[in-house]
Amino acid sequence: MRITIIGSGNVATHMAAAFKNAGHRIVQVYSRDLQNAWLLAYHVGAEAVDKLELISNETDLFVISLKDDAIADVAKTLAVHNKLIVHTSGATGLDILLAVTPNAGVFYPLQTFSKVREVNFRDVPLCLEGGNDDILGQLKELAYTVSNNVYTVDSAQRKVLHLAAVFACNFPNYLYGVAQQLLAQHQMGFDMLRPLILETAQKVQEQVPGDVQTGPAVRNDGGTMAAHLQMLSDMPQLQDIYTLLSQGIIKNNNDVTANG
Amino acid sequence: MRITIIGSGNVATHMAAAFKNAGHRIVQVYSRDLQNAWLLAYHVGAEAVDKLELISNETDLFVISLKDDAIADVAKTLAVHNKLIVHTSGATGLDILLAVTPNAGVFYPLQTFSKVREVNFRDVPLCLEGGNDDILGQLKELAYTVSNNVYTVDSAQRKVLHLAAVFACNFPNYLYGVAQQLLAQHQMGFDMLRPLILETAQKVQEQVPGDVQTGPAVRNDGGTMAAHLQMLSDMPQLQDIYTLLSQGIIKNNNDVTANG
Repeated sequence: MRITIIGSGNVATHMAAAFKNAGHRIVQVYSRDLQNAWLLAYHVGAEAVDKLELISNETDLFVISLKDDAIADVAKTLAVHNKLIVHTSGATGLDILLAVTPNAGVFYPLQTFSKVREVNFRDVPLCLEGGNDDILGQLKELAYTVSNNVYTVDSAQRKVLHLAAVFACNFPNYLYGVAQQLLAQHQMGFDMLRPLILETAQKVQEQVPGDVQTGPAVRNDGGTMAAHLQMLSDMPQLQDIYTLLSQGIIKNNNDVTANG
Repeated sequence: MRITIIGSGNVATHMAAAFKNAGHRIVQVYSRDLQNAWLLAYHVGAEAVDKLELISNETDLFVISLKDDAIADVAKTLAVHNKLIVHTSGATGLDILLAVTPNAGVFYPLQTFSKVREVNFRDVPLCLEGGNDDILGQLKELAYTVSNNVYTVDSAQRKVLHLAAVFACNFPNYLYGVAQQLLAQHQMGFDMLRPLILETAQKVQEQVPGDVQTGPAVRNDGGTMAAHLQMLSDMPQLQDIYTLLSQGIIKNNNDVTANG
């Protein structure tokens, strides 16, 4: 397939590389910043462009991977080419593309990407939506060339996925940082916590979180929780976080007990 | 070394197996519940006992792995044997053992254990404290027979580690469960999130959390955060959690910007 990548951020970078590795041809990479466009284009053997009017018609698919609020305007400009257009945003509906072309879909990778780290794209869940069944079929075919985890997800579900990803990824990463800061305040390094963090995530690869919850809250160990809150006495925001999350764990546990 | 295991919970189980695999002899396993004692004892070739007065003097080390509030009483009973006694608790000081014997230490594994899942014990950070340098030396020697990650940590630091572990392990696991519930409410399975959870933990094995934070809060994307809070409108506790954790991410980010 001939693919044009609109954007040069983390998602655009990983997706362009995955398409290229699967044998697709990346025609052009567009970014307002020519250097960013060029860096990605160079790695996937494409032409770099920094103006929408330089975008070629000789392509089969436009993949828009831009900030959410930039998608609509760019899609409007690209619609003149009469080619399939998809965006990669979890928080954006398909309707924003359908407003400018019927030939539209969504290709949302449910993963956290950083430029410095390779991911195995074959494990990345790809959540697809198409303006019609034919488009969905084309997107599925494309998706299976780069991943084994392909899902059909409508716009309402995709927004829930995006919200769930904040709880499953962005918030845990923030809490890792809190733990790191607590250790640093007492002359201990983050290395001590890394095996625990990895094991916590590995545990739920086969189990469900409710079955492997550990810690003072699930034991309803009030003494330990009180001691922890005392240790956080000069960090009221962390006290609030500790209290709220512990209450959540206790509540889940009571619900299980009540139902079991 | 001849080792007696006091307790039959997750920590006792994994530690007894690690000692056994490293060539140590597990003499006895004690639990108030004879069946639990027997299950673990059977797997490590030890005798099972359910009464403290049945505990043999023919040992070199007592490892107390019980609920925090049970440690002091049991230690008092064991002290008559005049052997080295350690506990495995993150939240408990060494002083509770020193009150009954000078021959005391702490052997705290900073990991989350479940009975159903094997862990590679050689990766488990072991945090040691000894009543004196000789005891610390003995514990270090023992620790290196089962793990490559051995740290000397005093009681104050260990309490911080235990608190940090709540933030790095117990709270992320709770948030995984929240994400799972959000998906279930919209007919989607937890499998969709598993690769994201694993990658989030793998990222910080080489990076630090602050450098790999993603999501709407770190971008200060108010539109997306408002939409997410709206989606949680019938779950006020989750709204509170969302708001507090997002504020934390925004604050970290502002601090970095102010310093950078």
